[in-house]
Parts: sequence; structure tokens; C-alpha cells
Amino acid sequence: VSRPILFLSDYGLADEYVGICHAVIARLAPETRVIDVTHGVPAQDVAAGALALVTVIPYAPDDAVYLAVVDPGVGTERRGVAVQAGPAVLVGPDNGVLALAILGLGGARRAVALDTDRVAPWAVSGTFHGRDVFAPAAARLATGADLEEVGEAIDVGGLGDLLVGEPLVEPGRIATTVVGVDRFGNLRLGAGPAELQKAGLADATSLAIRGWGDAIIARRVGTFGDLTRGELGVVLDSAGMLAVVCNLESAAERLGLRRGDRVVLAGTG
Amino acid sequence: VSRPILFLSDYGLADEYVGICHAVIARLAPETRVIDVTHGVPAQDVAAGALALVTVIPYAPDDAVYLAVVDPGVGTERRGVAVQAGPAVLVGPDNGVLALAILGLGGARRAVALDTDRVAPWAVSGTFHGRDVFAPAAARLATGADLEEVGEAIDVGGLGDLLVGEPLVEPGRIATTVVGVDRFGNLRLGAGPAELQKAGLADATSLAIRGWGDAIIARRVGTFGDLTRGELGVVLDSAGMLAVVCNLESAAERLGLRRGDRVVLAGTG
Amino acid sequence: VSRPILFLSDYGLADEYVGICHAVIARLAPETRVIDVTHGVPAQDVAAGALALVTVIPYAPDDAVYLAVVDPGVGTERRGVAVQAGPAVLVGPDNGVLALAILGLGGARRAVALDTDRVAPWAVSGTFHGRDVFAPAAARLATGADLEEVGEAIDVGGLGDLLVGEPLVEPGRIATTVVGVDRFGNLRLGAGPAELQKAGLADATSLAIRGWGDAIIARRVGTFGDLTRGELGVVLDSAGMLAVVCNLESAAERLGLRRGDRVVLAGTG
Repeated sequence: VSRPILFLSDYGLADEYVGICHAVIARLAPETRVIDVTHGVPAQDVAAGALALVTVIPYAPDDAVYLAVVDPGVGTERRGVAVQAGPAVLVGPDNGVLALAILGLGGARRAVALDTDRVAPWAVSGTFHGRDVFAPAAARLATGADLEEVGEAIDVGGLGDLLVGEPLVEPGRIATTVVGVDRFGNLRLGAGPAELQKAGLADATSLAIRGWGDAIIARRVGTFGDLTRGELGVVLDSAGMLAVVCNLESAAERLGLRRGDRVVLAGTG
Repeated sequence: VSRPILFLSDYGLADEYVGICHAVIARLAPETRVIDVTHGVPAQDVAAGALALVTVIPYAPDDAVYLAVVDPGVGTERRGVAVQAGPAVLVGPDNGVLALAILGLGGARRAVALDTDRVAPWAVSGTFHGRDVFAPAAARLATGADLEEVGEAIDVGGLGDLLVGEPLVEPGRIATTVVGVDRFGNLRLGAGPAELQKAGLADATSLAIRGWGDAIIARRVGTFGDLTRGELGVVLDSAGMLAVVCNLESAAERLGLRRGDRVVLAGTG
Repeated sequence: VSRPILFLSDYGLADEYVGICHAVIARLAPETRVIDVTHGVPAQDVAAGALALVTVIPYAPDDAVYLAVVDPGVGTERRGVAVQAGPAVLVGPDNGVLALAILGLGGARRAVALDTDRVAPWAVSGTFHGRDVFAPAAARLATGADLEEVGEAIDVGGLGDLLVGEPLVEPGRIATTVVGVDRFGNLRLGAGPAELQKAGLADATSLAIRGWGDAIIARRVGTFGDLTRGELGVVLDSAGMLAVVCNLESAAERLGLRRGDRVVLAGTG
């Protein structure tokens, strides 16, 4: 029996890149189930990939092999790694794309730097390590190989970190970032209940949201259904972070905000 | 053995929502096969979701579990349901997204209102019932649970209906709606052979199509191949409904029509 | 046991077309694994489909059944075929979409013209042979049917060819075409190492690239990592063809080039 592979990348679905990685896994591990987390990570956006990956972990099989390929440094000296964390294994470039997931799984227990000579079933290209290195490594780990069979042990303390802007919290005020906009126009923020608490806004029934323009008042509610049509609200989203939403409309359009924009939440008292 | 799950939603593939639902099913029902019908249903468009879902039914395994999540009312009092219809089971919000499929399967035999306490393996969020309620319910029903294990029996007569504009038929004239435009620019209409018959146009060899501008004559043909390059035609599409097509070009561009626009078909005699 | 099906089309993922073909295979061959190569082939672009398909072959299971549906002639007299090439089988319209893959597999050994009466489990529509003919044929071939069970033997010499513009090679100069642009903005060209050799440019350390505007110098490098940020380069891509790339930026934007545009590579000596 094989462990399932959960596959995330920034390859998109317009080309055959994702399909080729699936083909590689089917070739090397015909019984292995592959679940696509998403391949819509913005191109080369390591932080967005890390955020999407950590979101899926609580809901996935415990023994999953995570294959995460967002790899702006392909062809450079950046190393590929395989990491054991809890009962799961993670495979990808050592550029921080795995960092949040490793934290979410309780921290790295063991890690290896992938040895392409041992892993790649064919000559390694300079541009497509998803096909040549990462998918083959994931296939072997899913079907029972030990970490040491795909690389050399490395110090888990040296694994790549993810650098994301920390939210700036003052009494009555949180400055943070739009870390994502979904297709409904909901704005996912880089702050959560902990920041609300620290800012003394945990019990606020409304918050002033300021992006590029004037501040707009949004109601602090439990869910969309508590808002009237077109009303702005602040909710905890499905990942437990703050999100600005608009009932049956797009909060992103209303506020003119996109991923990466700064947002300030303030009390209205 | 498990029944297959056929999964349709308006989540899109840019984010990890669909991947998380797949992960949930893999966690709760590792052997269950999941087939993606489409996740490109326009956001919160219940009617478009219902139309896409009913189209797949004749071609799917008879004992399929349909998981259909187009859910503008998530977080409100709208209930989730599981419905038995023929040998199939359908799971989703009770807002009409299942209505056409239930009809297509010969009508509802039994139904339950999903009981989140029984179904959800974790705390239920206000915003992502696909992950917390519907996918877990589908996973349990696919692996042998009876309807009553996921909710309380309800009257099948009270299930949500889908309200779509009926085509208006007069002698020699059908007023209907563009219910969809595919990527080739073919216009799917909300009328079929029955309306042609009622309008006395069943034997017409050409029809006048009027959208926003002047009427254009289209030939009534069996298939694309009967048209010259760039010629407009009216065919029965693969779902058995009327469609306006243009050989090797886009009928939508030619007529300046989009989904939701009104169209009048009239005789040319 | 079943052979895996590798499925490629120009259906896109916005509609339910791909999902219906998956449903058909699940209905006819419940144990068969289906791998999506890509469904993002530009609509009705047979050459782009052929190029995507041949790229996956070296990495896929040897005994795969390839299902390739890019079919501008659906509903006309064009025939559907199933072809044995090496240990693989290919199914699709006989319009050249299979031609490069057949070559890549060492040439056709046997072929049949699909007989819709034998293959289709239901009445054949004029517009959706993926559902009615090709997916059912692939399902039967994956689960052990012989070619003759789905059609009549035909001469492999009469199979449809793919007509692509050949690159024009002169001493010091290659005129070719942008055959694809991926989402990172890399330009895949219709020329490779053989053309470099013929033009006497195999050892050139830089090349002048001319598209619509003035020529721009690009360095001939092994991989992205050999370029400084924003520098243009020419590499061999993962399919072994020449590609113009730009480190961490889009070469397509930089050069103003799209798929189908002509490009001239010349020596800079």
C-alpha cells in the first residue's frame, strides 16, 4: 500500500507540466493516489504556496506525502529537501515553501538534501525539477522508501525559513497585509484572533478598514449570513484568520484592494 | 468497496478549496474515487450549477454520490440535504442546485436534512461547509452509511426548487435565454425540441435569431460539419437542447451575446 | 487490471466536458486510472495538442492509453482512430493530433478506424465525440479490448499527418516560430539543437533574437540560474527544444511575442 501524495505547485493547468508530474508518479508508483491541492499558486510566489499548503494539513490523511513545487530558483544551487514532520513527509525546494507546513505539523524531525543521482530516473534538466527530482522523490517516499534513500541527512535547523511581513499591532490598531483574494473577492488578511486580542479589539462589534482610500466601517460578524446584501464584514475565515468579506459582492472590488496591499484595521469607538 | 463521488462546485481551481475537499474525502474514505465534474460554475450561480450537474447524469456510474456545492447562503439558516433518487445519492445545500438532477434521476425517494453534529469531524466554520459538512457527508454515504446516519428524515416535497425563466412560446416564435456559452463560443439556449414543436418550427430549415441587434438567419442543421466555415447554425447540443453555433468561429462573438441574455428564435417563412 | 488512460483535450475546465468524459470512463471501466495531461490546449489547435502530447510520453507508463481530443472537424467525415505504437495505444480524431506521439513511440504498428456502432454505448451526438466515441473506446482498450474490437483495420501509412512550419535554416540564422508560451512567459521555439548545428551556431555564446522590434542579445546558457535577474537567455527546455527565457521575468512580455509569432535567431559574431 502507498501513502497518498498531496501535490501543490505554481505550474497552472494551461500547460502539460502538472500532467507530466502526474505521469511520472503513475510510472514510478502506479498504485499511489495523487490529490491536487492547487496549481494556481501565483507564479514563483513562495509565500502564497506556503500559505495554501499549511491550510490543507488538518484535513488531509495524517501520513500524507506533500509535494510542493514553487521554485523560482530552479537550476541554481538551492537544494531540494525531503522532511519528516509528525507522521507526514514533505518534498520540495528548500526555499521556505515548506516552512509553514512543517511548523503546522509540529516541526521537522529529520531532513535530507535530495541527491539527484539517487532520485532522478533520467537526466536532470535545468528547468523542470518537478518532473525530474521532486515527483520521483515523492513517488519513492510514498511507496515506502526511507528519507536516507533519497538524500543525505541534514540539520533540520538549517531548513529554509519563510519571511512574511509580521502584522504591526498597537492599541486599537492592526496594520497587516492582504495575503490572498479568493474568487468571491474575499480578502484574507495576515492577522488573526491573536492580533485582535493584542490590539484590544477582540470585543469590537465593528472595525474601520483602511486600504488605499478612506476608512470604511465593517461589522464584526460570525458569518456571511449575518450581513445584509452588500454589507462589509470582518469574519474569521476557514483557516482561522481575519478576512474582510461582503455579502454576495466582492470586498476586493469595494475596497480596491489586491493581494500584497497593506490594510489597517482600527477600532471605531 | 465504495461508490464514486462526482464533485461539482463554484470554487474554481485558483485556490486550495477544491483540493481541501478532496483531502477530506481521502482522509475519511481513502478508497473512494472522486471525479471532478467541474469547479468552473460561475460564482454563486445556482442555476448554472444545476444545469451542469444534470448534464453528467446519463453518463456517470448509476450508483454515484453527487456532491454539488454552489452555496451563496453558506452560514445562513439554509439547510444542507442528502437525497436518494434512483440508485444515486445527492448531497448539497437545499437551494435548488440539486433540483434538476433529482428530476433527471426520476424524483426524490427519500431525503434528510444534514445534521452537522453527526457529520462534521471537526468544528463547523461559518464559511466553508464544503469542507466541514458536505464532503464529509458524501464520504460517509459513499462508503455505505445510510441517509439516516447523516441527518433527520424530511419530506421530499419540501426540497428546494430551481426557478429558471421558462421559455415563452408563441406560434412561429420562441423567446428564451442564453443559459451558457462554452469556450468555443457556442450558445446554449433554454429551449429544446419541445418548444420548437409547440411553436410550429420543428420542420423549419432556417431560423431568424435575434439578440441585441438585427435578426440573423441561421440554418437548422444536424452538426457543425453541415455548415460552411463561419456560417451560423442551430443544432441540438450534446445535452439535447437548442444551441446556436458557428462553424470554426464563435457564435457568441458574432451575435454579441453572453450568458443570461434574451434571444428570440423565429420562423423565416 | 487496467492500463492507465492519459487524457488531453482542448475542452478547458470551465465547463463540464472533461468531467463528463471522466464519468464515462468511470461508468465503463471503474478501475481505470485517468491522468489529465492538460485540457488547456488552445481551442481547436491541433498542432499545440500534438506538441503537448508528445512531451509527456517519455515520462508516462509504457503501456498507457492516450486519449487526445482536439477535434475541429467533429461531425464531419473525418474518422476517429485507435493506433498501436510501441506498447502504447492512442485514441483520437485522425487529424494529426496523434502524429508526433506516434513518431515518438517509434511509429504506428497497427491502426483501426473507430466504428461508432461498436464503440458508442448510446446514440452518437454530432458535437461531442469525446463523450460518445473516444472516451468509450479508450475505456475498452484500457481494460483489455483488442484494436479490432473497436474498429476496422486501416493502413498505418494513411494516418493523418501534422503539418507544422519547418524552421528555415541558413548559415548563421534560424527563422522559426513561437510554438508556445508558458505561464512564466518562457517562449518555446520550433527549433532545437539540430537547427543550431545546421546554422553553425552550436557553439555561439550569445544569439540575437528578433521578433517584431529590434534584435535583442540573449546569452546561450544551461539554465535560468546562469542568468542575472531580468537577463534574457536561450536554453534547451525540458522538451529538448530551444526556448527564450528571462530570469524571474517574462521573456514574452520583454519581446512582445505570442504563440504563432515568427522569431529569427542569428549569430552575434
